[in-house]
Amino acid sequence: MILLMQEWFSSWLKKPVAKRVYLDHAAATPMCVAAREVMAPLLVESFGNPSAIHTEGQAAQSVIESARAQVARTLGVRSAGVTFVSGGTEANALAIVGHLTARVRAGAAWSDLEVVSTPLEHPSVLATLSELATRGVTVRMAAVNEVGVVTPAALTAVLRAQTALITMAYVNSEIGTIQPVSSLVRTVRAFTRAHNLPKITVHLDAAQAPLWLPCQLARLGVDTLSLDGGKCGGPKGSGAVVVHGEVALAPVLWGGGQEHGLRPGTENVLAIAGFAAALAWAQKNVDERAIRVRALRDAGIDQLQALVPGAVLNGPVGEERVANNINISIPGLDTEYAVVALDVAGIAASTKSACAGIGGGESVVVRAITGDAARARSTIRLTLGPDSKATDIPLVARVLMDQVALMGTLTQ
Amino acid sequence: MILLMQEWFSSWLKKPVAKRVYLDHAAATPMCVAAREVMAPLLVESFGNPSAIHTEGQAAQSVIESARAQVARTLGVRSAGVTFVSGGTEANALAIVGHLTARVRAGAAWSDLEVVSTPLEHPSVLATLSELATRGVTVRMAAVNEVGVVTPAALTAVLRAQTALITMAYVNSEIGTIQPVSSLVRTVRAFTRAHNLPKITVHLDAAQAPLWLPCQLARLGVDTLSLDGGKCGGPKGSGAVVVHGEVALAPVLWGGGQEHGLRPGTENVLAIAGFAAALAWAQKNVDERAIRVRALRDAGIDQLQALVPGAVLNGPVGEERVANNINISIPGLDTEYAVVALDVAGIAASTKSACAGIGGGESVVVRAITGDAARARSTIRLTLGPDSKATDIPLVARVLMDQVALMGTLTQ
Repeated sequence: MILLMQEWFSSWLKKPVAKRVYLDHAAATPMCVAAREVMAPLLVESFGNPSAIHTEGQAAQSVIESARAQVARTLGVRSAGVTFVSGGTEANALAIVGHLTARVRAGAAWSDLEVVSTPLEHPSVLATLSELATRGVTVRMAAVNEVGVVTPAALTAVLRAQTALITMAYVNSEIGTIQPVSSLVRTVRAFTRAHNLPKITVHLDAAQAPLWLPCQLARLGVDTLSLDGGKCGGPKGSGAVVVHGEVALAPVLWGGGQEHGLRPGTENVLAIAGFAAALAWAQKNVDERAIRVRALRDAGIDQLQALVPGAVLNGPVGEERVANNINISIPGLDTEYAVVALDVAGIAASTKSACAGIGGGESVVVRAITGDAARARSTIRLTLGPDSKATDIPLVARVLMDQVALMGTLTQ
Repeated sequence: MILLMQEWFSSWLKKPVAKRVYLDHAAATPMCVAAREVMAPLLVESFGNPSAIHTEGQAAQSVIESARAQVARTLGVRSAGVTFVSGGTEANALAIVGHLTARVRAGAAWSDLEVVSTPLEHPSVLATLSELATRGVTVRMAAVNEVGVVTPAALTAVLRAQTALITMAYVNSEIGTIQPVSSLVRTVRAFTRAHNLPKITVHLDAAQAPLWLPCQLARLGVDTLSLDGGKCGGPKGSGAVVVHGEVALAPVLWGGGQEHGLRPGTENVLAIAGFAAALAWAQKNVDERAIRVRALRDAGIDQLQALVPGAVLNGPVGEERVANNINISIPGLDTEYAVVALDVAGIAASTKSACAGIGGGESVVVRAITGDAARARSTIRLTLGPDSKATDIPLVARVLMDQVALMGTLTQ
């Protein structure tokens, strides 16, 4: 009987979420089975405060330290290099403001510090950079090319002796551009060597990467990495800053000494456990998953361009584009409305980053790479998932064809 | 069959956590059944990004807006006054730094602003006040009496024309002192009226209150309230800043426009739902629960003082003390070790606030009210829960008697 119950519970946890065609994985991923399985028992167990020395506290502590070791193993860093936070936004704040705060505590003035980034960053980075600017930090934006890539030359052009930190997204959340991270890091290291400068910290916002690209820090060459559990099969409200080597950080919230003094507040045991399980799952077969989904993506791009009049692809093709991202513009079309029409047809899609707000307005990213306002106002982003099927994009194409035809009728 | 499964699932969710005697509810509460029941389905459902306009996104949005309405109803405020955050620490940061940042944005200089607090605050408030001091804010500490109470006269003594904000804990997390909030708020309002000053914002850190005291803001007279889900039967990593009336706030993290622009980052749907359910449950029968547990507390204090040689109570008695808190000192005893001995005997207790760190060292709170270092080094905190029994404290007394006897043997 008990066995039967456990079987039912286990199959419930494995229940596929989407009966619909869900093509908004860049905004939120369903929780993977591994995350659900590790989290379900924690709804009734391990409720202690991990800072408490009693059995209940130590049980909770043990959950988070196992999770920390799992993340460390997955990303090839020491456990001490993993700091759990409440999501990607806080992770970017800690990696960016936390690092500069540590430099200020060590004696630098805010106005002595420069940060290099790109105009295509996620709102959590752009808003954080604005905050730094109000404190006196100089922020320099590296130019991006027509598909959103930062070239070594473009990066070198904005490096200065005062550059303390470089921050950029591994994968752009709207157009899927993958930055040539290793090559850019080599450029940075060559710059500091050539001018005999102290190390420039390189931070990578990897929120969109774990399902599609290897994220081991040593391989990438970066110093810090930020992650968001809700974008890689884990729970929302989870994430981490991961450090390789020695990088000074200071907390951006204030209180107890949790997370080696970097993140005060009782640890979110449930979210931490789910995040670690999801990240390990996401990275395990990442190459195989990327190859499979990239084929769907490329077929989908071809179908959309062939079938939907006026559709143009935004961002790169091939290996420079993350495996799951399709972003097209249909200039003239009200794509907010098209997304609603897709929804009615059983398809979840988006126009741009969910963090950029629900309202209308153009895609800052597409405007930056194309300079074309009409194109930036008419984006549709389709982000595939591990379970996406070859039949998904043809369904999208059909709805968009109808929308374009309707637009033709209305404007006649 | 399905019915049978659901019955099993439901009974699993109702499973009592503690086979042991758990007396550390101030550090962490087990999740209440209401929170578990609302969270379990969310492990497999409503995974969308609440900022997305498609069905999945709107389902998630609907979960958080229902939760917001539930919190608003529970605390007697408008839904727009509820901002969900990642826990009590972040809630205090947003209510304190967020409010002063808003004043600075409106034209004030940091150095024009004063904040009034008490020396007994939680680390998340004390560290936040230190941060403000580095920005130039003057922080004035109101004197507390020998049981930790701030009197109207002590508060008036530190009010100034420049006072922008008063922040204090409703219930002290270590010694259980309940501040006479309504009376203190009347004092503040009388002060501003008498000197024809603008409104002083009154913030209450209510993390320790929801299970034991009514928290409706209008009744208390306060402007903002911070809460932590993990201390009132909800999940860790959840909390809120709740505003009554008009109070300017600015975000303390930077990014998207979520939570009416006050808290960027994808909303933690799971934690928000669990928090709202727990808070409603905690506040529902709060008076009845407090009366029942207060009787256990008072019997327990009598038993400990009668049986444990040298035991002295820290903090107030009667109505000035929160219903679930017992805090004694046994000067000379290594109470860190005693807590371990209690643990071995099946009892979870603590020496002080979990956020004050695992290590030794004295209780800042007990030192502040008694000025007695030996007493501050030898505290034991027992915080009862809704399910505590009359037999719990006698078990504690027996272990402590043994510890004291052992100490006598060793020092002979």
